[in-house]
Amino acid sequence: MAPLIRGRRLPERRLENGILDSYNAEVMSTSTDPAAPIEDTIAIVGVGLIGGSIAAAAKSRRVARSVIGVGRNPERLQIARSRGLVDDVSDDLATVAAQSNLIIFCTPVDRIVEGVKFAAAASRPGTLITDAGSVKRKICDALRDSLAPGVEFIGSHPLAGSEKQGFEFATADLLEDRVCVVTPSEQSSTAARGRASRFWRALGASVVEMSPEEHDRALAETSHFPHLAAAALAATLSDSYRALAASGFRDTTRVAAGDPRLWTQILLDNRVDVLTSLEKFSQTLDAFRQAIGTQDAAGVLRLLENGKRIRDSL
Amino acid sequence: MAPLIRGRRLPERRLENGILDSYNAEVMSTSTDPAAPIEDTIAIVGVGLIGGSIAAAAKSRRVARSVIGVGRNPERLQIARSRGLVDDVSDDLATVAAQSNLIIFCTPVDRIVEGVKFAAAASRPGTLITDAGSVKRKICDALRDSLAPGVEFIGSHPLAGSEKQGFEFATADLLEDRVCVVTPSEQSSTAARGRASRFWRALGASVVEMSPEEHDRALAETSHFPHLAAAALAATLSDSYRALAASGFRDTTRVAAGDPRLWTQILLDNRVDVLTSLEKFSQTLDAFRQAIGTQDAAGVLRLLENGKRIRDSL
Repeated sequence: MAPLIRGRRLPERRLENGILDSYNAEVMSTSTDPAAPIEDTIAIVGVGLIGGSIAAAAKSRRVARSVIGVGRNPERLQIARSRGLVDDVSDDLATVAAQSNLIIFCTPVDRIVEGVKFAAAASRPGTLITDAGSVKRKICDALRDSLAPGVEFIGSHPLAGSEKQGFEFATADLLEDRVCVVTPSEQSSTAARGRASRFWRALGASVVEMSPEEHDRALAETSHFPHLAAAALAATLSDSYRALAASGFRDTTRVAAGDPRLWTQILLDNRVDVLTSLEKFSQTLDAFRQAIGTQDAAGVLRLLENGKRIRDSL
Repeated sequence: MAPLIRGRRLPERRLENGILDSYNAEVMSTSTDPAAPIEDTIAIVGVGLIGGSIAAAAKSRRVARSVIGVGRNPERLQIARSRGLVDDVSDDLATVAAQSNLIIFCTPVDRIVEGVKFAAAASRPGTLITDAGSVKRKICDALRDSLAPGVEFIGSHPLAGSEKQGFEFATADLLEDRVCVVTPSEQSSTAARGRASRFWRALGASVVEMSPEEHDRALAETSHFPHLAAAALAATLSDSYRALAASGFRDTTRVAAGDPRLWTQILLDNRVDVLTSLEKFSQTLDAFRQAIGTQDAAGVLRLLENGKRIRDSL
């Protein structure tokens, strides 16, 4: 077993009694002590904005006894630990997986499936694995079958974050009052579903359960296609007019500053639903083109009123 | 002469010596006393978010000796005065115009031309009239010819505001560090151009001069078409997915909450440039459709990188 970077091993009790601990955690979560941890050891794989915020929230809300950050860059991980985001850090996923009750993958979406399979092979029975990826169908389909005896994966997507990257922007309250979508499959156990939801709620989020397919349809409309539209809108701006881009333009295109590699993967992984949203949007665009071209004031007004009605309802 | 609503007439000196006062104002603005007013009496026609903010800024920065709010709803005007946004209020534009050195129209764009012509007929020589309308070509074309002896109109567009309406949201710092576009015509005098620019700078804005035509082309890209796109994006959201619209969607569609009647007028008044922006945007949308449909990751990445580069440059 590779040593943890920090050079300190976790207490043997946790290593040996994983299953019992996880059962205990289930019981504890319904106990009358709100300060009691609901998980023993949590591993956060990918300590960026989201992973760092989940770790910070889990620590500050005492959701777990120990939070371990796992990543590929030891120097960055040490900085995250020195900032108090995690209790311990490691670049050895197998070792950490074997010590953890709950593992949360916060890596880019194209690295989640492979990472989960690798971690599951090293995990003890009773370990729950989840993620924070923006696309769910592709990930959940690939991880639907049994991973390892007693090890379950349930997809999650906390709807929080920003165009910024890195744990430097992580905050313990990033998930507070946000929605986290949990996407169980038909194979998911009731216990695992409850445990995933309980974890996100303990971080301050409210939980919505839906199928991975439904999640992807919804997110294409609320996030994936809007990202594409914001990028296309930013690209429409001529260089010479940049100085005249005021707060309206800045807000409308804010998300376009997000990481292009990350978003390329999201748009391609959810391409069918994204293209469906694009067609729906294009139809409204055509209606605007028609109404403006024919100076149909009532038509333009109706289209704008419809947009306002929906925006105001949020 | 109809009495001012407040029942107090302005000092006779201002009524009789308008031209001299306005010449004095010119001199004062280049004096060494930064606290000296640069205009004597300012009239704000339409005391809403923008008009109220201009009035509040003019008062708090002592840009004018007196700020009069003009509108059609006496009760609303009295509330604006009681909140300290203006020194005096009136529903009698002709009377106020005859007393003012600078008149700023902050009404919806479709009421500006008629209002300016009416006010100009009652104004003394030396009076400068400007506006805060979002579209400039149509307004400036209609007001290009001489309005009345010694009375000039120069278009303005302070790039500030929000989707909110009403002076309740007005703030004295709304224009601080914002851009105000001033759109003189070939007939505009150097003195009037300087005076318009000096006024907006005194409120904390930086001034950009361009032709009305250039303004409309620029604003179609930075504001008018983005408004349309935000409304179309809001309209794309299914009712059942509203709960999943997080901060990204909210920011991207924020401007769609703006007043549909106001924006219908803007989109129609600037329809040629808005449709040009729509076509430019549609081409990028088509490129995304093509790249995603063929799973061309490099193509999607290039499009997203282009959007990010422009957004990051703002």
